[in-house]
Amino acid sequence: MTEASICTIGDEILIGQIIDTNSSHIARELESAGIKVRKMLSIADDVNEIRENLTRELQDSDIVIVTGGLGPTKDDVTKKVLFELSGSTRHVENPGQLEVIHRILASRGLDVLEINRAQADVPNKCEVIVNRLGTAPVMVLRTSGSVLYSLPGVPYEAIGAMKDVVEDIRRHYRLEDIYHKSVMTYGIAESSLSNMLEPWETSLPEDMHLAYLPDPLKGVTLRLSVFGGEKSTQAARCEAELVRLRKILGDSIYSENDETLQQVVGRLLIERHATLSTAESCTGGMIASMMTSVPGSSEYFLGSVVSYANSVKHGVLGVRQEILDTCGAVSEDCVRAMAEGVRKLTGSDFSVATSGIAGPGGGTQDKPVGLVWVGVSSAERTEAVKFNFNNDRLRNTQRFAASALDTLRKFIASR
Amino acid sequence: MTEASICTIGDEILIGQIIDTNSSHIARELESAGIKVRKMLSIADDVNEIRENLTRELQDSDIVIVTGGLGPTKDDVTKKVLFELSGSTRHVENPGQLEVIHRILASRGLDVLEINRAQADVPNKCEVIVNRLGTAPVMVLRTSGSVLYSLPGVPYEAIGAMKDVVEDIRRHYRLEDIYHKSVMTYGIAESSLSNMLEPWETSLPEDMHLAYLPDPLKGVTLRLSVFGGEKSTQAARCEAELVRLRKILGDSIYSENDETLQQVVGRLLIERHATLSTAESCTGGMIASMMTSVPGSSEYFLGSVVSYANSVKHGVLGVRQEILDTCGAVSEDCVRAMAEGVRKLTGSDFSVATSGIAGPGGGTQDKPVGLVWVGVSSAERTEAVKFNFNNDRLRNTQRFAASALDTLRKFIASR
Repeated sequence: MTEASICTIGDEILIGQIIDTNSSHIARELESAGIKVRKMLSIADDVNEIRENLTRELQDSDIVIVTGGLGPTKDDVTKKVLFELSGSTRHVENPGQLEVIHRILASRGLDVLEINRAQADVPNKCEVIVNRLGTAPVMVLRTSGSVLYSLPGVPYEAIGAMKDVVEDIRRHYRLEDIYHKSVMTYGIAESSLSNMLEPWETSLPEDMHLAYLPDPLKGVTLRLSVFGGEKSTQAARCEAELVRLRKILGDSIYSENDETLQQVVGRLLIERHATLSTAESCTGGMIASMMTSVPGSSEYFLGSVVSYANSVKHGVLGVRQEILDTCGAVSEDCVRAMAEGVRKLTGSDFSVATSGIAGPGGGTQDKPVGLVWVGVSSAERTEAVKFNFNNDRLRNTQRFAASALDTLRKFIASR
Repeated sequence: MTEASICTIGDEILIGQIIDTNSSHIARELESAGIKVRKMLSIADDVNEIRENLTRELQDSDIVIVTGGLGPTKDDVTKKVLFELSGSTRHVENPGQLEVIHRILASRGLDVLEINRAQADVPNKCEVIVNRLGTAPVMVLRTSGSVLYSLPGVPYEAIGAMKDVVEDIRRHYRLEDIYHKSVMTYGIAESSLSNMLEPWETSLPEDMHLAYLPDPLKGVTLRLSVFGGEKSTQAARCEAELVRLRKILGDSIYSENDETLQQVVGRLLIERHATLSTAESCTGGMIASMMTSVPGSSEYFLGSVVSYANSVKHGVLGVRQEILDTCGAVSEDCVRAMAEGVRKLTGSDFSVATSGIAGPGGGTQDKPVGLVWVGVSSAERTEAVKFNFNNDRLRNTQRFAASALDTLRKFIASR
């Protein structure tokens, strides 16, 4: 099996200032292409460390993916090491990357300084994959038995470049066929899911593997991988197992096409030519932000009232003062009124509302931190449901928002 | 300087299923104790890989911290390797850890099985630090020049054990003091910043190091580290350099205390006993979401109207239809009207509004993708400013939101 090492370069990782998320993303991309990651490492912006470690990884692995150490500022040293390791004699300006540098800086209204232009210069014994999302090119160093790809450290540029990198790997290595299918679920905790699925999972053929990928905003994604057999039969064999999985999980499955909850909600709205608005207290705009993260969402998303203060719940959404005084803002009556209020205010077909206690302060015996009420409303009916979580502020808010979207998804789907 | 390697063991990290957060936490603990982390690595649950890598790290570093590979179901692969590397001849039961195992399982209503009891058995040439938060003990292996600490993989147990580990290190090593200071800036790109600071940076003493840490939501953080000298003088020497830095950067510096933009805005509001509301089009609730991510933000944040549709800009915020028809939604007039509208609607002292084109669709020659208008308003005056970016949808939205918060910060600070 083709093996890879992933190496991140940057002092900021080693002092714990930032958490390396690139490696995890790159690992998933490599893994689904059938490449085994045998090692990840993070080292400092130091020429000697970089030289020593990259040399060793090129000996031990078929593929080495490097991120970081390519920015225009002083502490960026990866290029120096690649110059040396590749036995280059001079730098060559890459016209494709230079064009991108000009385009990006122009769009920001900035001049192209010498420091920027120099980013397009690459060691003459390295190949280049143009980085369309940033100023530093992807450099490719081929040795006798291995290949090294040097990617920028900025996560969205590194992630963006991986598609081209995997394509390049496919052109040079014969990779084993692995078929993956993702089934996205929401509302069942990983441990409960694992219990529910145990008999099914145990009965899977030897060459199929199930992975649980939990995410606070997406729920638990189940990834079924088929390693053996011909590519032509892998999909059918996978589907045969999924038929049984669907019976166990029912409508806890929200997508089999790598969609997010907000994409599914958007799709359901488009199918019904319907519009949506949100009224958010504890989620503070996160649901609206998630909905509008989908390109084209203006087709169905009208807007939101983030009613953080009770005065806004009353004054803008029309929640009766009596409800706020007697039931409180975190209550079934309040989220029902919020959902109905925002639907009428914006004229949307559907709406969703949240009110809860994200913490760390504000909890009581009756209404502890982690409690959230979710309301959903259409012209025909309004419903409310409550959830309890117990995490830190950010994690609670994420769970609140995702649970609201999942409640909304089921509500719209049943219409 | 005392140097350390951090090694995490676990297949789940290598396939990208989970992101390693232990290493980052351990690095921060080591770093603030004056220990330099020279390498982080993640390897598989494989005896050969573990043996080979730990042997190398014990040669190259003074201190090696290992997490993972200790659970009862993982066949204790780490313990096997430590048995071998330490030259142990048998396992010895650690009574302190056995007591913890009994206590923890009893509290969960579980019996102590043989598999649990065996966790208290440690190689006889290893020392033990009792893990009070879990069942697997911390094992300590001292070689001639180095020391290895093996911690459990569960994050809260690993983090909990680090206090004892650092204490143990202090007993055995004389540690150098390192002083760090972070200066957070917004509005100047990393490459321009590097140019502006070059004379200053070049003149820094040999034992001071400057790092640039860019982030779309935080701008560029400059971290100045002082390696040499006595602890008592490091802060004063750093401050002497910062005096010059502040003159160069002026109000582009928004914090010297590791605050985010939303925390600074919150602090400015609290100081003025003032409140805030937001009116968001292209940012879709992200600004409200960022503001409410700060605990206690209900003290000053009243709410937001996410006016994604023009009907909401007009109907809820009171933007005149004439403005929408003639200038369009992405215009100075519109964001001024939005900012004033939401301030009056919610009764807040300050407000901020955004309207722009996040992409990928919707751009025109006059109003390209990446253009955003930001409006800020108080009872005394309303201002508007535009920015141009050129990224993907998520990145543009993040830049829009951060630029709006930075504009708001300067607006409030000048009042």
